[in-house]
Amino acid sequence: MSTKTNSALSELGRRTSAPPISWLMRIKLERPKLVSLAAGFTDNDSLPLAGSRRLMNELLRDRALGQAALQYGSTAGDDALIERTAGRIAELDGAPAGQATGLSKRLVITHGSQQFLYLLTEALCDRGDIVLVEDPTYFVYLGIMQSRGLAGRGVRMNRDGIDLDHLEQVLESLRRSGELKRVKMLYLVSYYQNPTGRSTGFAVKRGAIELLRKYERAAGHPIYLLEDAAYRELRFAGEPAPSALSVGGVAERVIYSGTYSKPFATGVRVGFGVLPEALLEPVLRIKANHDFGTSHLIQQLVLKALESGEFVKNLKKVQARYRAKAGAMTAAIKEFFPSSVEWEKPEGGLNVWAGLPRSTNTGMKSGFFRRALEQDVLYVPGNLCYADDATRRKPSHEMRLSFGAAPEADIRRGIRRLGRVIGKN
Amino acid sequence: MSTKTNSALSELGRRTSAPPISWLMRIKLERPKLVSLAAGFTDNDSLPLAGSRRLMNELLRDRALGQAALQYGSTAGDDALIERTAGRIAELDGAPAGQATGLSKRLVITHGSQQFLYLLTEALCDRGDIVLVEDPTYFVYLGIMQSRGLAGRGVRMNRDGIDLDHLEQVLESLRRSGELKRVKMLYLVSYYQNPTGRSTGFAVKRGAIELLRKYERAAGHPIYLLEDAAYRELRFAGEPAPSALSVGGVAERVIYSGTYSKPFATGVRVGFGVLPEALLEPVLRIKANHDFGTSHLIQQLVLKALESGEFVKNLKKVQARYRAKAGAMTAAIKEFFPSSVEWEKPEGGLNVWAGLPRSTNTGMKSGFFRRALEQDVLYVPGNLCYADDATRRKPSHEMRLSFGAAPEADIRRGIRRLGRVIGKN
Repeated sequence: MSTKTNSALSELGRRTSAPPISWLMRIKLERPKLVSLAAGFTDNDSLPLAGSRRLMNELLRDRALGQAALQYGSTAGDDALIERTAGRIAELDGAPAGQATGLSKRLVITHGSQQFLYLLTEALCDRGDIVLVEDPTYFVYLGIMQSRGLAGRGVRMNRDGIDLDHLEQVLESLRRSGELKRVKMLYLVSYYQNPTGRSTGFAVKRGAIELLRKYERAAGHPIYLLEDAAYRELRFAGEPAPSALSVGGVAERVIYSGTYSKPFATGVRVGFGVLPEALLEPVLRIKANHDFGTSHLIQQLVLKALESGEFVKNLKKVQARYRAKAGAMTAAIKEFFPSSVEWEKPEGGLNVWAGLPRSTNTGMKSGFFRRALEQDVLYVPGNLCYADDATRRKPSHEMRLSFGAAPEADIRRGIRRLGRVIGKN
Repeated sequence: MSTKTNSALSELGRRTSAPPISWLMRIKLERPKLVSLAAGFTDNDSLPLAGSRRLMNELLRDRALGQAALQYGSTAGDDALIERTAGRIAELDGAPAGQATGLSKRLVITHGSQQFLYLLTEALCDRGDIVLVEDPTYFVYLGIMQSRGLAGRGVRMNRDGIDLDHLEQVLESLRRSGELKRVKMLYLVSYYQNPTGRSTGFAVKRGAIELLRKYERAAGHPIYLLEDAAYRELRFAGEPAPSALSVGGVAERVIYSGTYSKPFATGVRVGFGVLPEALLEPVLRIKANHDFGTSHLIQQLVLKALESGEFVKNLKKVQARYRAKAGAMTAAIKEFFPSSVEWEKPEGGLNVWAGLPRSTNTGMKSGFFRRALEQDVLYVPGNLCYADDATRRKPSHEMRLSFGAAPEADIRRGIRRLGRVIGKN
């Protein structure tokens, strides 16, 4: 039989590269003594075991509820969960209940918010299209873009989100080069951003939408704002801005994604997205081809958790855990990192972003990364979080340090080890 | 704001049409008195409520197991579930345990086997590529093909699967027209096929692989056999053939998909696929972009069901239910349909396929379909199950009648009503 086995692959099949995180996870498995501050996993001790058991019992003891939970549902998702989710978003936005009604008509439940990001990107973007992203941004979304042959343009960040002046410069330069018609959306991770931990201010969201709108005529089509609110519920200090759904009169331009995975249980994989009306049907059609609809059992578990108050009860525990872990990490950073390292205290999320002096290369093939591995500590190299964008150099002096999965003692140990590597640098 | 909202859609987003089943499901919701023999839902009464409750309790009571179940897993799926699944396939194939070891290295767990079909098609097929399918075939797979811009070529069926002579004719004509290089695979629903209920004989599977192999040189790349075994466990009579995985020396050409949704619980959505080594990594990379991996909680539930014997115990109940329901349907057909209707007694699966005289059009816009609706009975028009293939006319005198979801009294009622419509024809 022929050995040219790969040549039957599609363009996408040939193009899609391995996610860097899989390599980082493999290293961890091979070296059990390693402290991983790279993991995307969440805190084990605050997972809702007892609560989920109680809710599953309630669900499966009731004949009608149990049968429905173990049967197929609809492609868009369970109606009651959609209503609850819309209500939860409205509540977080401090919006009147009326807003929830509007949202529920444009909401889809997915296998994690990652699936929503994939479906949406499939519905909007052809190969060669451009997505504007934060510099830096969520590297798993960069994986979707890489696989689907999309180009990225990075927009610089300030303390409260993207730099609107730079966004305008980028849009203007795309207009001048004739590339604006390839621009489909601006992707913002708006709460406790992965990787920087920063949140986007409301004025920045509104300003971004206005700028996108201004360039629509030249683009010849809508340019959407995709707000990824995956970390929104993982808040442990401060009061973040309402979502872009609260900006008046722009429902046809704002896409919003969120998840129950991180605030409730990552093993449950229930996420959601809110779409402009014009995009809802295309996304649902694609979702029907992917899987007909999200597992009804895990949807019903999340619904029960929301209805019973278990979700909010557990969320408080989750938030307290991450507050403590973030505190442990920042305290260790103060103790073990030299003052030349720049970092910010996060108010939520799972990560601290640290910038070394620009002369230090933290990339996967750097001496610094190798020395960190020798010290049995792992981080996500910052350059993985920047889109390929020929108009600027990728910074490579940063690190994403996650306090999500590691226990507090390991966090301190890991930061101390990293401090040693930085000191020797 | 501009109202040209749709123009930002991708080619795929614009192309993807609504699945016909969603329309059929909507009709059912609007007319509660309707007996639907069109539903893809499964039997409610044999869903494993008590068993799932017991297993969930065991799972979530154990701290280590429970934490693992509520945490992220790996992209390929849980190792133990992969091993069990490989073992189950080997067992069904009557193969030695050694085969299972080989399979587990090439296995991926997915959100239902539908997700596997999608991922695989993404990895293999570009727009304009050709998939060979049975005439008729599973119409949801035709939806994936439509969305992704693939062409279908139908291969005629006999009692024991596709007609190998016709397969050779189709391959030969594609070779002559220069289209063979676009042919990526042959898709067979090999057990109790949806829609015909027929199973593919082992000699047919082997013969098909040999034919595909013969045309590989002209194609310039491998042509795969994709065996969709979704209904394999829903056996209630007879002894079906082993899978194509049992054909010796062709591991690099056979793709196999299966599911726990139908034999255990459709609300749980755990499916799987076995791949040639060359395709495993591309599919895993794409799956990582879709959702990182299948919900760990539902994987652990299925694993527990397999380990504890609950899966097999419930499966016997499921098989007995469908045996009874299939019996109710065929008895009613004998009683109420005229002898001019052709049909076969199924030995498994969820469907009876019925052919009316060729002069009768059963399509969605036909008078026959409308009269059936007036009688409050719904079926899947047969022509929906044929690929768009310009080389032959689509037959439109057939019906897919499902005994999966409807209770036995409704099955009898539905067939009686249909009999009345046929009588008046």
